[in-house]
Amino acid sequence: MADHKSSDLGFACLDLERERRCGFPEVIFAEGKSEQALVQIVAALHQQGQSALATRVSDAQSAALRAVFPQAEQDRLGRTFWLPIAAGQGSEGKVAVVTAGSADLPVAYEAVATLKAMGVAADLIADVGVAGLHRIMDRVDRLRQADAVIVVAGMEGALPSVVGGLVAGPVIAVPTSVGYGANFHGLAALLTMLNSCAANVAVVNIDAGFKAGYVAGVMVKAIYRQR
Amino acid sequence: MADHKSSDLGFACLDLERERRCGFPEVIFAEGKSEQALVQIVAALHQQGQSALATRVSDAQSAALRAVFPQAEQDRLGRTFWLPIAAGQGSEGKVAVVTAGSADLPVAYEAVATLKAMGVAADLIADVGVAGLHRIMDRVDRLRQADAVIVVAGMEGALPSVVGGLVAGPVIAVPTSVGYGANFHGLAALLTMLNSCAANVAVVNIDAGFKAGYVAGVMVKAIYRQR
Amino acid sequence: MADHKSSDLGFACLDLERERRCGFPEVIFAEGKSEQALVQIVAALHQQGQSALATRVSDAQSAALRAVFPQAEQDRLGRTFWLPIAAGQGSEGKVAVVTAGSADLPVAYEAVATLKAMGVAADLIADVGVAGLHRIMDRVDRLRQADAVIVVAGMEGALPSVVGGLVAGPVIAVPTSVGYGANFHGLAALLTMLNSCAANVAVVNIDAGFKAGYVAGVMVKAIYRQR
Amino acid sequence: MADHKSSDLGFACLDLERERRCGFPEVIFAEGKSEQALVQIVAALHQQGQSALATRVSDAQSAALRAVFPQAEQDRLGRTFWLPIAAGQGSEGKVAVVTAGSADLPVAYEAVATLKAMGVAADLIADVGVAGLHRIMDRVDRLRQADAVIVVAGMEGALPSVVGGLVAGPVIAVPTSVGYGANFHGLAALLTMLNSCAANVAVVNIDAGFKAGYVAGVMVKAIYRQR
Amino acid sequence: MADHKSSDLGFACLDLERERRCGFPEVIFAEGKSEQALVQIVAALHQQGQSALATRVSDAQSAALRAVFPQAEQDRLGRTFWLPIAAGQGSEGKVAVVTAGSADLPVAYEAVATLKAMGVAADLIADVGVAGLHRIMDRVDRLRQADAVIVVAGMEGALPSVVGGLVAGPVIAVPTSVGYGANFHGLAALLTMLNSCAANVAVVNIDAGFKAGYVAGVMVKAIYRQR
Amino acid sequence: MADHKSSDLGFACLDLERERRCGFPEVIFAEGKSEQALVQIVAALHQQGQSALATRVSDAQSAALRAVFPQAEQDRLGRTFWLPIAAGQGSEGKVAVVTAGSADLPVAYEAVATLKAMGVAADLIADVGVAGLHRIMDRVDRLRQADAVIVVAGMEGALPSVVGGLVAGPVIAVPTSVGYGANFHGLAALLTMLNSCAANVAVVNIDAGFKAGYVAGVMVKAIYRQR
Amino acid sequence: MADHKSSDLGFACLDLERERRCGFPEVIFAEGKSEQALVQIVAALHQQGQSALATRVSDAQSAALRAVFPQAEQDRLGRTFWLPIAAGQGSEGKVAVVTAGSADLPVAYEAVATLKAMGVAADLIADVGVAGLHRIMDRVDRLRQADAVIVVAGMEGALPSVVGGLVAGPVIAVPTSVGYGANFHGLAALLTMLNSCAANVAVVNIDAGFKAGYVAGVMVKAIYRQR
Amino acid sequence: MADHKSSDLGFACLDLERERRCGFPEVIFAEGKSEQALVQIVAALHQQGQSALATRVSDAQSAALRAVFPQAEQDRLGRTFWLPIAAGQGSEGKVAVVTAGSADLPVAYEAVATLKAMGVAADLIADVGVAGLHRIMDRVDRLRQADAVIVVAGMEGALPSVVGGLVAGPVIAVPTSVGYGANFHGLAALLTMLNSCAANVAVVNIDAGFKAGYVAGVMVKAIYRQR
Repeated sequence: MADHKSSDLGFACLDLERERRCGFPEVIFAEGKSEQALVQIVAALHQQGQSALATRVSDAQSAALRAVFPQAEQDRLGRTFWLPIAAGQGSEGKVAVVTAGSADLPVAYEAVATLKAMGVAADLIADVGVAGLHRIMDRVDRLRQADAVIVVAGMEGALPSVVGGLVAGPVIAVPTSVGYGANFHGLAALLTMLNSCAANVAVVNIDAGFKAGYVAGVMVKAIYRQR
Repeated sequence: MADHKSSDLGFACLDLERERRCGFPEVIFAEGKSEQALVQIVAALHQQGQSALATRVSDAQSAALRAVFPQAEQDRLGRTFWLPIAAGQGSEGKVAVVTAGSADLPVAYEAVATLKAMGVAADLIADVGVAGLHRIMDRVDRLRQADAVIVVAGMEGALPSVVGGLVAGPVIAVPTSVGYGANFHGLAALLTMLNSCAANVAVVNIDAGFKAGYVAGVMVKAIYRQR
Repeated sequence: MADHKSSDLGFACLDLERERRCGFPEVIFAEGKSEQALVQIVAALHQQGQSALATRVSDAQSAALRAVFPQAEQDRLGRTFWLPIAAGQGSEGKVAVVTAGSADLPVAYEAVATLKAMGVAADLIADVGVAGLHRIMDRVDRLRQADAVIVVAGMEGALPSVVGGLVAGPVIAVPTSVGYGANFHGLAALLTMLNSCAANVAVVNIDAGFKAGYVAGVMVKAIYRQR
Repeated sequence: MADHKSSDLGFACLDLERERRCGFPEVIFAEGKSEQALVQIVAALHQQGQSALATRVSDAQSAALRAVFPQAEQDRLGRTFWLPIAAGQGSEGKVAVVTAGSADLPVAYEAVATLKAMGVAADLIADVGVAGLHRIMDRVDRLRQADAVIVVAGMEGALPSVVGGLVAGPVIAVPTSVGYGANFHGLAALLTMLNSCAANVAVVNIDAGFKAGYVAGVMVKAIYRQR
Repeated sequence: MADHKSSDLGFACLDLERERRCGFPEVIFAEGKSEQALVQIVAALHQQGQSALATRVSDAQSAALRAVFPQAEQDRLGRTFWLPIAAGQGSEGKVAVVTAGSADLPVAYEAVATLKAMGVAADLIADVGVAGLHRIMDRVDRLRQADAVIVVAGMEGALPSVVGGLVAGPVIAVPTSVGYGANFHGLAALLTMLNSCAANVAVVNIDAGFKAGYVAGVMVKAIYRQR
Repeated sequence: MADHKSSDLGFACLDLERERRCGFPEVIFAEGKSEQALVQIVAALHQQGQSALATRVSDAQSAALRAVFPQAEQDRLGRTFWLPIAAGQGSEGKVAVVTAGSADLPVAYEAVATLKAMGVAADLIADVGVAGLHRIMDRVDRLRQADAVIVVAGMEGALPSVVGGLVAGPVIAVPTSVGYGANFHGLAALLTMLNSCAANVAVVNIDAGFKAGYVAGVMVKAIYRQR
Repeated sequence: MADHKSSDLGFACLDLERERRCGFPEVIFAEGKSEQALVQIVAALHQQGQSALATRVSDAQSAALRAVFPQAEQDRLGRTFWLPIAAGQGSEGKVAVVTAGSADLPVAYEAVATLKAMGVAADLIADVGVAGLHRIMDRVDRLRQADAVIVVAGMEGALPSVVGGLVAGPVIAVPTSVGYGANFHGLAALLTMLNSCAANVAVVNIDAGFKAGYVAGVMVKAIYRQR
Repeated sequence: MADHKSSDLGFACLDLERERRCGFPEVIFAEGKSEQALVQIVAALHQQGQSALATRVSDAQSAALRAVFPQAEQDRLGRTFWLPIAAGQGSEGKVAVVTAGSADLPVAYEAVATLKAMGVAADLIADVGVAGLHRIMDRVDRLRQADAVIVVAGMEGALPSVVGGLVAGPVIAVPTSVGYGANFHGLAALLTMLNSCAANVAVVNIDAGFKAGYVAGVMVKAIYRQR
């Protein structure tokens, strides 16, 4: 393991081989980083010829990044930053991104931005929770046309089980911290999804829209890479 | 409060006024009681002219009770014992008792036996969990014909939210300890139900089929008493 | 399920059939929604000829709504907004809404506003916790005159068990996050109520005054609808 | 601290000064000890002229102890063993030991045996839980005649709050693991009692009848020692 | 229970019989109350000839109270307010109030103010945690001169076990939320104290300085009342 | 939804459309079912021309099934039962199933049996936990040749993060209940995996070998179906 | 990493380089392994010329191992098995192993056996919990003569904080699952130790006597290796 | 214990013997202390001829301390304050301080400052988490040259297990509260580290950089003291 590439900034050690090894460069979790450090990390990746995706970007961080990289795309609702090294080449395939409520949308936007960075199309279906079943039933065709489905839900988090029973492909469930009381900041939805009686449901961390997007993107790219 | 009636057996102090105050005699939670003590309590109620309902009756307790009260009705699956003081007079009205899986049936049977003891009819609908939605959708009419619905579910406990969105009446949700892993003995289903996005869902304790039956029975009797 | 009605605002998909299916229109959980989105949702419901009830309305949201819908009723303590489509027609029947302490009042007000929106009368009994029993004992008649009782309590949440033993009808228990230390934001009161030894007690989420009001309202309307 | 007395058995180091320091010899927690070790420890205390109280004594341990110390008193329900060094000299004063249900009795018996070993009288009041309030209200005089009250309760554990509001003296609350579901082996009752709105309620560990008896005994002895 | 006295302010129902029943008037938990409501409650008690003790008084509440009741005593560190109806008559006896660290002092001050309101003397011993044992060992005489000991500790909460082994009287342990990480806002210290191997230790809620002072005060008054 | 197919056995309502909707028949969770009920369910599926996979099959259940369906395949270590309706047709593609320790093997066998039932090949790599990194590093080629990787780990559950950083495809992490102490029956490993810093890791329930196999199988079949 | 040594038994992949890398061979966690598998693993290590230490060895496993390796040392109380490849060469230095109660001894024995296998002397000091402080104070010299101290404690786990304040060297704290009620199987003691106010205390898993012995042994060997 | 030295400031009781007993003076936990109290405590130590180390120093506290003790060293990122009584005399030996991510650096800085105060050298290796293994593998030599290794990690906390398998010396693991969702403020990383399959890993509290530095420093000083 002698000649592996990494870029040591002292406070950060960038994994410059991630793209070769895993198919996508290291992604930056911006939360808690100073604006200066964040800009330095993005610049280092950029200078190494790597695309830079950052998540959990605050408004202040966003402004600092925009000043240096005005060409980057930023989604302020999903709090993402995307600085591609070249014009993206789209994959085939599509991921449906479904939310139970409108308050779950920021997490869904993070997933959508991640998919976009990976070159995978997303079909956003918002606010179709289980208490009004016809909303999701009316959209089953869109679910089935997708290669994978991401379901984002807070409160009791029941939607992934219902969606899992309607499609043949994999479902990535994202619990959100939306709710109150015995929701315990997303714990209720997380447990619901882990215990789903639908066999095709896997789960990521609470509010982890990025990870859901990434896992789904990896799957879809595998499907169309094989052709 | 000087002349209230209670029967003090030394180890137990029976509340003989419960029926007058609450409309139904004190119910016996058998778990953990010795067979001898259980028989004594049932006998004391019986001698006071009160019907006796016991729940969580073990096989050994059941045998001991049968030896003394051969006329009582016992449901070994639901683990209930019922010794009415007189021929029951049925109420009008009906409660639908729905389970997500077949493993939830013992808890449902406890609810059904409780309703029967209260003179309320039950319509049992088993194994219609959300991963195969058409099973519950095909039975919506039966749900809507009931005055109240009890939904018994383990695993992720999503069924009450779906049922709550399909009916106009109250839904009593019972989480069960059926499941494994991050179900944590029913905690997952309990949290799911407490956070239900359906507004007509109230919750009782894990595996509390008796309490669900009791609450639903009280509601139904109120409906038909008013006429 | 082809021709079900919903109103898709892009970020929200209103369930316009809720009233037909469940007897009351979709209720808006305002927390976390932008003022603009909230106003849009209320307007959409209003234009569809549906009454609009919103809960957890912040002061800023309240002001934004008042500017557009000055005719709506708002309860700033209970944080509710109510824009009826027509003069309400009252139901018969009455719900007693009881609080253990004065700090539980905002949750109780949410229940009262919900009942009012459903056309059901409420009898508020405040600050009658179990450490001074005579306060609740002196009001037993009012409890028994109600068709259902809502009990709102924080701290140790013992009041529903006491009330449950005093009345024949259903008791809906609402734990509140009032308390400190090992109360854990309402968890203590929630567990107390779930484990209540009174058989007629069902529970809703922590601070869920709306849901308690809704469940109780549904019950009372069922009673008087039958006549 | 050079010449303090202790008896080192190799596997156990008895604190022979406890009686001088704390007013009562070291008490033996039998659970998990081999029968042989338990007998050795009791014998060592006895030979040092100290009375021996053991709690959580299993049936097998009890038999082994009886073979060696036939003169000792054993309470098989409360699982206690008591081998006094001399005829006990009673204190004045009295502790009321109250249980919410009959299943809480073993824990109460442990408290009673502990009080007896300390020479303090106990007045046992069983099965007077809050769902039938008149049972405890009819016994208020007995509560008030006691110098301290121990309240033993499982399920939701509401009884100490009610008792605390009825008496002027200290209340020691003991949660028990009696219950099921969201009781979580006594956690629910424990949290209830810690959050009690009655100011005179202090709490000991789940099922800790011994500790409740000990704390109450210490208080009562302090009262009458002062005269 | 017909003629019990209570004062119904609409939003609060004061228990005016508490002093007669429990030996001390109702104590006001100020947290979460509006300044106006708090002043009203204090005024109502005062007009009924009852002393008023309030805890958890914020700076704003304190100022509002001072404007109306300039004669009251306020402890801004312990956040208490005390408006006696007459010159206090001291009890004999004394309570030692011990803290493990200096950060535990506000909770100790609350206990001290409560004791003072009850007419019981307090001996404050600060910052004598177990990592430097000689600090507490050097003060054993002061501990033993007290009729009861309150031990206030955050972090790992080990001090009550040590103190419990040094004195013959009752020890009231108060866990505090002082600490970080796996302290979980006082949960660690709470569990430590509940599991104390010292038999004379009872526990109150996290940060519950008032309750510890009250329980200890009740005990001491019982001791000296008997003479 | 009028003519959907289900088979109502009274105690169970089989979802006979699952295969059409989701690509695989309903799978039977055997735990807690009586031997008789389990045989009945398998027989009903078989008579409807559907393959039957059962998981969590106990030894007694296994014997009962073998008596009726001697032709079925059973894996006693993984506790699975498989009764195909026709000779399986294999998919292309392969899933690597990796375990951290040898005690994790039963969960891995459940995943392998599930994959086999779906017609997907599995490559089992056992006992390559992170404390001896060279074991997993020596097998990186096998990991990369797989279309998806399942990682099964108890104790601290760190292996999925390491594997996630070595491959480009999706990683399905399965926490197991293997461990002791603060492992809390798999909770530690579950949290570890949910918080994995590797972006391509999704998680299923504790000990959920079946679900991991199913999700991975669904992905692989999607990859090769597209060709 | 091409030529690293491991021994792949199919179900287990032994890390034969551990001794070279970490100074001690891989240690076998026997719990949950079949007797046959355990014997195979020990035999494989032995044939490779490596010493074999196994922990959590059940009685049945012990008998199976003794039949094949009669020369091995087994400690049935500590449940350890030790088959050295050559006569052990002792290190200098010494570790004090202290327990709070006698019920903590099995965990202490596991630590002692581990130290012995590493060639490090142990000084066992049993049953010196904090409720009788003079027991530990009388043994301070023995504590200070050790190079490191292991403290094993259940219940409230306060002893490490006291010991930490008495010595200058490192203290390894081991919480045990000894206790009941709110001990929650060792969680209380674990949290106590993690929050210790003594700065020289590090913690290992609940009941992890082996790990404590190993960490302490590693430290002591480092001290004397340097000379 | 009559003549032990402590300095009682009323609100704080400084343990002036700590250095003699434990080899290092009492360290000040600044969090929650008023600026005035903090300055007083530092001054008291300084006047007694003791070095003063403070941790968790806020910006305001830092400024107040700097005004009085301009000569002290402060690390604003690690939030430490260090006022030595004399020029430090360095120990031999070295501790590697490793972080998984750059967000873990403040905790690492606290460890480094502590080591420096103890006269022990630190080698900081930042941002080498397990998802890009070559980063840590490329630095194995530096790890092995250290006498002890501190590993600081948030998120899933897997790095200590990997490092533990690469070195022969002790590893002190520090979980950090860095992360989100099911990380639960460091709980996930804490459990991971406690359950580490690497035998040489001991754990300190969440974010406890100071304690990790202290424990490692104590070990290293013991190694070189022996020569």
